[in-house]
Amino acid sequence: MQTTSSSVEEEIFRVRKLEISDKNKGFIELLQKLTVCDSVSHERFQERFQELAKYGDDHLVCVIEDDKSGKIVATGSVFIEKKFIRNCGKVGHIEDVVVDSSVRGKQLGKKIIGFLTDHARLTGCYKVILDCNIDNIPFYEKCGFKQKEVQMVKYFI
Amino acid sequence: MQTTSSSVEEEIFRVRKLEISDKNKGFIELLQKLTVCDSVSHERFQERFQELAKYGDDHLVCVIEDDKSGKIVATGSVFIEKKFIRNCGKVGHIEDVVVDSSVRGKQLGKKIIGFLTDHARLTGCYKVILDCNIDNIPFYEKCGFKQKEVQMVKYFI
Repeated sequence: MQTTSSSVEEEIFRVRKLEISDKNKGFIELLQKLTVCDSVSHERFQERFQELAKYGDDHLVCVIEDDKSGKIVATGSVFIEKKFIRNCGKVGHIEDVVVDSSVRGKQLGKKIIGFLTDHARLTGCYKVILDCNIDNIPFYEKCGFKQKEVQMVKYFI
Repeated sequence: MQTTSSSVEEEIFRVRKLEISDKNKGFIELLQKLTVCDSVSHERFQERFQELAKYGDDHLVCVIEDDKSGKIVATGSVFIEKKFIRNCGKVGHIEDVVVDSSVRGKQLGKKIIGFLTDHARLTGCYKVILDCNIDNIPFYEKCGFKQKEVQMVKYFI
């Protein structure tokens, strides 16, 4: 007989900043579920991690670790663009949001977006933006976003 | 009688990086034609200029100066986002493109986009993206861009 453990239901799924040890907890494998993402060597990962760390609060990658499995099950990032418009204002750009299918329905996507949005607000941004697939519009509307412009892209490879 | 000077037609309209002295050449006034952009004090401008300079090639603001009037008549910016996906790839984000109406029809928008796109390519980006109004899609298509996703926004003020 299949039982549902109440402790599973009570799992906290806390959002925290990416740590260098998350490479060994399935962080890259999670990103591979989002898009083209080759395996990354430990050295390459460390190098990029340090590069991003130099930006301080201007670049944040957050994750949710599943305490039971020790795996990273959700992630997203935001970087802060400094402008001249809006009285030298700042804009948060949310990128690379993904939640593992094994934990869908637990509102982890909403938690990630909330964390990144709060970060943008607290660092003084006048707005936060993201680009998404048309299918994900209802999810972002539930997170308080509104559809505005159209994303255009040019690939070099 | 109104005459058209051939020297006007031959104006070069060279794209170059933003310089700190461009504040006195109408750079902020040009941005005001794009969106909400209050007057910026000289100190605030200098501070933001220096902040952006620290990013080196990862943040570029370019301008076109009209040699005749000494005014900045076109601008645009690109910043380079460093990711973990795509084998720790990079993406160029084009922002705040505006051409003064007095010089429209001279392909200055195309020059600005070409300059920013080249910068993204030469710094190793695998793609360059931008968000635009639906009315501007044909212009960006002429610049080699394709429509892809939808921009979502949340304002804090």
